[in-house]
Amino acid sequence: MRNFKIILQYEGTRYQGWQRQASTGNTIQGKLEAILGKMTGVEAVQVDGAGRTDAGVHAYGQAAGFKLDTDRTPEAVLAYLNQYLPEDIGVIAIEEMPERFHCRLHARGKTYRYRIWNSALPPVFERRYVYEYPQPLDIEAMRRAAALLVGTHDFKAFTSTKKGKKSTVRTIEELRIETAGEREIQLTYRGDGFLYHMVRILTGTLIEVGSGARRPEEMAELLACGLRERAGALAPAKGLALMEVRY
Amino acid sequence: MRNFKIILQYEGTRYQGWQRQASTGNTIQGKLEAILGKMTGVEAVQVDGAGRTDAGVHAYGQAAGFKLDTDRTPEAVLAYLNQYLPEDIGVIAIEEMPERFHCRLHARGKTYRYRIWNSALPPVFERRYVYEYPQPLDIEAMRRAAALLVGTHDFKAFTSTKKGKKSTVRTIEELRIETAGEREIQLTYRGDGFLYHMVRILTGTLIEVGSGARRPEEMAELLACGLRERAGALAPAKGLALMEVRY
Repeated sequence: MRNFKIILQYEGTRYQGWQRQASTGNTIQGKLEAILGKMTGVEAVQVDGAGRTDAGVHAYGQAAGFKLDTDRTPEAVLAYLNQYLPEDIGVIAIEEMPERFHCRLHARGKTYRYRIWNSALPPVFERRYVYEYPQPLDIEAMRRAAALLVGTHDFKAFTSTKKGKKSTVRTIEELRIETAGEREIQLTYRGDGFLYHMVRILTGTLIEVGSGARRPEEMAELLACGLRERAGALAPAKGLALMEVRY
Repeated sequence: MRNFKIILQYEGTRYQGWQRQASTGNTIQGKLEAILGKMTGVEAVQVDGAGRTDAGVHAYGQAAGFKLDTDRTPEAVLAYLNQYLPEDIGVIAIEEMPERFHCRLHARGKTYRYRIWNSALPPVFERRYVYEYPQPLDIEAMRRAAALLVGTHDFKAFTSTKKGKKSTVRTIEELRIETAGEREIQLTYRGDGFLYHMVRILTGTLIEVGSGARRPEEMAELLACGLRERAGALAPAKGLALMEVRY
């Protein structure tokens, strides 16, 4: 069996997220597995994603891996995938990896970007990729709050995971808040890994800081208490994109 | 009657172009006129566009004008339009103009951009806005051809208009051919006005130069002979966008 790693882009709008569902779901993983199954004649090709993006979340640089018994070159596998994938999913790179490589276990970090359309004017060309929040936001307050989130912390208050067994400690290496043009604010999160819903809850909380509903200093209290109900709202999926997986 | 000028953006994918059609057509002009009619209670509000974009062509800065008997502020008219327009059409600016201003007759020039996706990798996020042409293109040859098109010429060979009465002389002030990232080539046309299909036929012809099917020097012959059938193919609508109307 040969071990392949691909880099993928997708517009999440039409999909129920990355992960294959028990029965009917329209998922990115499901699409890839079906096409690779057709290519090799093997029914149960398994594709592992570096991260499981939620329904509606986009990817500019998702990584995924799979093992195949095939004579095709990596370039031929990429071409086959792109030939049969719908046009809102595309493979932009492929590489053959050592047998032991695992795209989720060996990922050292990820970068996500959240886009806020901070204008009353309509985002005609960006509408599928931004959260429309036209009210004024205090970016300096958001940056002060963000500075308190950077570092290694227990992010239990910022995840929707119910089970309490696994560690909720993660490291945010960088959290940049920048304007992009006159109408957009982008939050870029770089970290070693992110919990379920973590980027969207952090973003929802930072928006509440920007709107004046919370003080930046509350971030330290939220990290300390670990209570989801004290953190902010879950920001909408469509503003979020997985930009890069680092190895 | 007060005279308004608006700046519009639209994704042309779903529309049969700018111009209202006799009966059923789904057009940008038709949408605007219907909403302004509803706002004022006047059945026959007429909206004039600075240019008539074809079916599938996009706009980042189309200009349009209309006269209304209304007490609303310009900002309220903009808000009303955006409230009722579908999300692939948006008004990004409005201005009240002197009575004699006419947005088509007073336009001094326009800028169009044509985007070529010059890669075999899929344009997942750009797929609605680019023409996919993965074969290699000789950009230097295209630039030599473009240089021959700049200036004041009879562009009769580069239009689909059948009627021979109106002047087909136009001035291209600038024609830039640039790479954008590793996978895209953009052609930016700035001129005093453009004939029906002119940008798309010029682009189709320049692509044939880039592919090696034509010599750059042929541009002079095409301008001189004025025969549509000697010029290149009509490039697809979806790669084209009206960027700006100058006054």
